[in-house]
Amino acid sequence: MWRCWKTTSSLMAQSEFRKRSKLTSVPTKSQNKPTTPELLPSAVASAMAGFSRKKKLLVGVSGGRDSMILLDVLVRLGFKRLVVCHLDHTLRGRASQEDLVFVRRQAKAMGCELESARARTTEFAAEQKISLELAARELRQAFFAKCAKIHKCRNLILAHHADDQIETCLFNFLRGTGASGLAGMKPVSKLGTLTIHRPMLGVERREIDLYQKLHRIRFREDASNAELLHARNKLRLSVIPAIERALGPGFRRAIPRAAEILRAEEEWMSSFVPEPSENLSCRDLRGMPLALQRRTVHRWLKSCGVPECGWEETRRVLSLLDTTGPAKTNLPGGLHARRRAGVLFLEKGTE
Amino acid sequence: MWRCWKTTSSLMAQSEFRKRSKLTSVPTKSQNKPTTPELLPSAVASAMAGFSRKKKLLVGVSGGRDSMILLDVLVRLGFKRLVVCHLDHTLRGRASQEDLVFVRRQAKAMGCELESARARTTEFAAEQKISLELAARELRQAFFAKCAKIHKCRNLILAHHADDQIETCLFNFLRGTGASGLAGMKPVSKLGTLTIHRPMLGVERREIDLYQKLHRIRFREDASNAELLHARNKLRLSVIPAIERALGPGFRRAIPRAAEILRAEEEWMSSFVPEPSENLSCRDLRGMPLALQRRTVHRWLKSCGVPECGWEETRRVLSLLDTTGPAKTNLPGGLHARRRAGVLFLEKGTE
Repeated sequence: MWRCWKTTSSLMAQSEFRKRSKLTSVPTKSQNKPTTPELLPSAVASAMAGFSRKKKLLVGVSGGRDSMILLDVLVRLGFKRLVVCHLDHTLRGRASQEDLVFVRRQAKAMGCELESARARTTEFAAEQKISLELAARELRQAFFAKCAKIHKCRNLILAHHADDQIETCLFNFLRGTGASGLAGMKPVSKLGTLTIHRPMLGVERREIDLYQKLHRIRFREDASNAELLHARNKLRLSVIPAIERALGPGFRRAIPRAAEILRAEEEWMSSFVPEPSENLSCRDLRGMPLALQRRTVHRWLKSCGVPECGWEETRRVLSLLDTTGPAKTNLPGGLHARRRAGVLFLEKGTE
Repeated sequence: MWRCWKTTSSLMAQSEFRKRSKLTSVPTKSQNKPTTPELLPSAVASAMAGFSRKKKLLVGVSGGRDSMILLDVLVRLGFKRLVVCHLDHTLRGRASQEDLVFVRRQAKAMGCELESARARTTEFAAEQKISLELAARELRQAFFAKCAKIHKCRNLILAHHADDQIETCLFNFLRGTGASGLAGMKPVSKLGTLTIHRPMLGVERREIDLYQKLHRIRFREDASNAELLHARNKLRLSVIPAIERALGPGFRRAIPRAAEILRAEEEWMSSFVPEPSENLSCRDLRGMPLALQRRTVHRWLKSCGVPECGWEETRRVLSLLDTTGPAKTNLPGGLHARRRAGVLFLEKGTE
């Protein structure tokens, strides 16, 4: 994966860094007359309440509207040591390069450090035989991990907002994922040793738009990697408007609420799943409720490195509990699961 | 509720009943050359495997395509004591009456008993201050319960199919229900003392259409009470096609699969919720994971008869656990919940 991108790092001069002092507070006019757009900075401020303004923080910035606004809000809130992390997925030719130029200029103007890299997403997807979307995500995650290492910083701020959450939940629902997918993105989550914070997760796109207009935030129209998110863009542009016409706007609150409920249930259910070991005892499995059996097997397969294991693989492994049926089932990645002497175990296929 | 409908009962002559003998097996042609349409009778046969062909069964029949096909399949499978249960919701004037005439004629032709009633749905909805959809459902449920009593029969067969399941799950998802709504309809469920069976739940509408064409089943085009299901019809006619254009047809399998996973998880989680008692101990509640707290409070509120209690009511009751906050919160139906001496209890509002 690593050879799929090159990094460039640039540290702004401290003098530049100071220049943004005039940006560190919300304009007085808005303070005197609170308006809807100011929901955004207060939501972000509240989500970031645990952080000192002097703490170093990584910020994922594509150059698109959402991340440019996140950056603007963080700077206005007084965060002084932001590292703008920008990955060029090299998927839109010249436009991708222009995104980087734009992000570099804006980071400089705001007195932020910049960490950027170029990833060869298409080649990586082809090499790994995975979708462009998955390739882009993996490269992005590796890039953020590298930024964290370079800057000795474990906190990454991302610009996901309520409408992203709705799209994520809807997309996962339509792909048939269980509670974990339906629970959507968490306000705070872990990615390896990184902690990801999403302070705008409760803020609707509409509010972000208002903020953008009020503060005239500049952004790159296409920086959201539209091509990557083909299916999701279709959801955004045709399915979600159709839902709104059918049911009114209430679903925009309903989905994140359900996600919140499911998140707690997901956490609770996960706490019952035993730590994965090398083998699974058939007897232990049989003693569990079906839902726990499924979760236990799924976690076990994942921990054993079975690629793309899902419902079908879980179902096949569970079918091995039936001693009148076959004692072996094939799995992706040239592996198979086998039942012998009351345990389930994995083998590398040799046939 | 009872005065909102009048029942009529009719028992076909046994001679009529015998006439359908020629219908009791699937046509030989199809048996020799299995075609897609025959998935339907085999799915129904497999779901109904536990029943003797002589057992008395109630069948919900609107006169629309799905229920007429269910009835046809059951008769062909050899079930000899079917009671066709038809409720006229009196929502479409003359057309509703014609549905009854049609269902009566078909039931007679197939040698089935008929149990029918007319419900004044609009008036009931107005009286109860509930939506037409909810009113129709409550009246239908009461009607089925009455049929069960009259016919001393505890098994009701309904014609819900896979596309209904998708609509139900999608609708519940968009309304923000948790796992219980997302889990959709069960193949077998309880309604009071009635057991409801949905033998077509795994069958897609497409297959039902094929069966209808192959066997030229007659049905009433409008008998599905289109007006009742306004939002759901919009989902069916505009949202679901938009999803199919965006993501392809895979979601039709994905949603029922997720529903199956969630159904097992729902069952598992429910098993942890304590039997509701009069009061809730704050200490016990505080010792629970958040997800179980929510489920416990929600079940308690429902068992106490709080009307329309959902996420917001549950959240408000749980906020009473915070001893620095208010010790009372208002609930629907003129009730309020109060914290005193370490327990939560409900009171009828007198203020």
